[in-house]
Amino acid sequence: MLDAREGMHNQSYVHEARLRVRYAETDQMGVAYNANHLIWMEIGRVEYCRSIGIRYRDMEEGGVLLAVVEVHCRYRHPARYDDEIVVRTRVEALGSRSMQFGYELSLAATGKAIAEGYSKHVFCDRTFKPVRLPDQYRHLFQEANVSGQQHTPVG
Amino acid sequence: MLDAREGMHNQSYVHEARLRVRYAETDQMGVAYNANHLIWMEIGRVEYCRSIGIRYRDMEEGGVLLAVVEVHCRYRHPARYDDEIVVRTRVEALGSRSMQFGYELSLAATGKAIAEGYSKHVFCDRTFKPVRLPDQYRHLFQEANVSGQQHTPVG
Amino acid sequence: MLDAREGMHNQSYVHEARLRVRYAETDQMGVAYNANHLIWMEIGRVEYCRSIGIRYRDMEEGGVLLAVVEVHCRYRHPARYDDEIVVRTRVEALGSRSMQFGYELSLAATGKAIAEGYSKHVFCDRTFKPVRLPDQYRHLFQEANVSGQQHTPVG
Amino acid sequence: MLDAREGMHNQSYVHEARLRVRYAETDQMGVAYNANHLIWMEIGRVEYCRSIGIRYRDMEEGGVLLAVVEVHCRYRHPARYDDEIVVRTRVEALGSRSMQFGYELSLAATGKAIAEGYSKHVFCDRTFKPVRLPDQYRHLFQEANVSGQQHTPVG
Repeated sequence: MLDAREGMHNQSYVHEARLRVRYAETDQMGVAYNANHLIWMEIGRVEYCRSIGIRYRDMEEGGVLLAVVEVHCRYRHPARYDDEIVVRTRVEALGSRSMQFGYELSLAATGKAIAEGYSKHVFCDRTFKPVRLPDQYRHLFQEANVSGQQHTPVG
Repeated sequence: MLDAREGMHNQSYVHEARLRVRYAETDQMGVAYNANHLIWMEIGRVEYCRSIGIRYRDMEEGGVLLAVVEVHCRYRHPARYDDEIVVRTRVEALGSRSMQFGYELSLAATGKAIAEGYSKHVFCDRTFKPVRLPDQYRHLFQEANVSGQQHTPVG
Repeated sequence: MLDAREGMHNQSYVHEARLRVRYAETDQMGVAYNANHLIWMEIGRVEYCRSIGIRYRDMEEGGVLLAVVEVHCRYRHPARYDDEIVVRTRVEALGSRSMQFGYELSLAATGKAIAEGYSKHVFCDRTFKPVRLPDQYRHLFQEANVSGQQHTPVG
Repeated sequence: MLDAREGMHNQSYVHEARLRVRYAETDQMGVAYNANHLIWMEIGRVEYCRSIGIRYRDMEEGGVLLAVVEVHCRYRHPARYDDEIVVRTRVEALGSRSMQFGYELSLAATGKAIAEGYSKHVFCDRTFKPVRLPDQYRHLFQEANVSGQQHTPVG
């Protein structure tokens, strides 16, 4: 596996997704409730995949699930109702049986940091038995991260 | 099918479930967000079934799903964080291919009405093809509603 | 108040919002859980308002809340993970103290109907005391629905 | 601040809350979606407080909010619909301006570990300005963790 920090600050492909804070996502503090940030990370992850040619829905229908085994989130600043949020997603590590995504959430209007975090995943089948990531997907993740940078492959 | 109103006000079995409003369920108005009431109705429905000997999980694993085809909710009074809510659930109609539950939500502390509503369901298999409710379940719903009242069966 | 059905099928302004079904919104039936449709209606409602010059966030900060007093939803067809959903929203009735929105949810790819429903609202202040809709907002709702159709005002 | 690990494995007070996995909390993998574990941690935290005489609702109405600044969760085993979950909560660190809770989630039926994690919080007022934890609350947290163990106070 690639060292996560290395991938984070250098050359890896970063995808930007955008979403708007829903009223349902606010709580009585007047800000987005903390669990929603994990859902936003999921959106970042799915759109990252779509942008490199992997429709997660197809991957899952093909029998490969990306089960979450660990999440971490550091909250920098509250997100408020109707704020537009940018989710910057990258692959921090890619192995044959697991991978890690990193996320930076910020306000679209000002760039202000909202939160950052990561999620670790194992590839598994529908019965949650670990499997290897099929080559077709592996190549797509790698290509996205090595374009023009042949000496710094991810994973 | 039984006329819903008739079942509602007379003899049908009523189950009471209790739950507490979660912080995650509040919104920035300082009250529980409106979609949560549907989740609370689901809890009322599931606990109703459990109380008459039907574990919905088993029913579903056995291939009979209770798909929601219609919901209605009238909001009377806001529910607030940490309020204990009573969900009173009854069967308003029971047919061979569909059924309707009715719900009354109130504050446990004062009895104040929070909301009321209903949900209509069709029985279906995992592919969402309509099926007939198996007799084992049908009998349990009927028994709960006719105990000592042989002339007013539900359904 | 305008008769809701009349507004629905004739001349009223219809706004289309789009969203994608999130993984978090699915349940173990493999389809979007029923309470999410209410959240999607809220998105339709908010984007309708934005499209006619009303940012709901500002309206609420100005002390006018659109409290939900009733919702109804009829589910036609399951929405699945990653499906793009079109939410068609219109004003079905507009009074001085209340209003009603109507919604049609469909699949963007095929136009297939997913669900339809309505929500009724009362205007209130932060303490949930009823208030009259300020003229500035009232005019915007009316203008959206009478452009070129002076004889069929909404409300 | 107390070293978190020390508190974790020794003498600190542990509260057990129970909840049942809701249908709405499942996703199409057939298990509870990962963001719900953070909501369950919140329930553990709130019930921990209630058990030592702190009603979080009152604390917040009194102007002291427990804002989340960091969460971490490691997922050990899927939680399934209708599973009863035990949330074991303890205070891992208590400072004048911040605190940390630790959580262990397991299946009530078998004791099998579902997940574990922590959340870090800062005390703040309604404008999210940091404040010191009032003594009345501080004493209650401390008392819960030192009963009979005068040499190992938390914080």
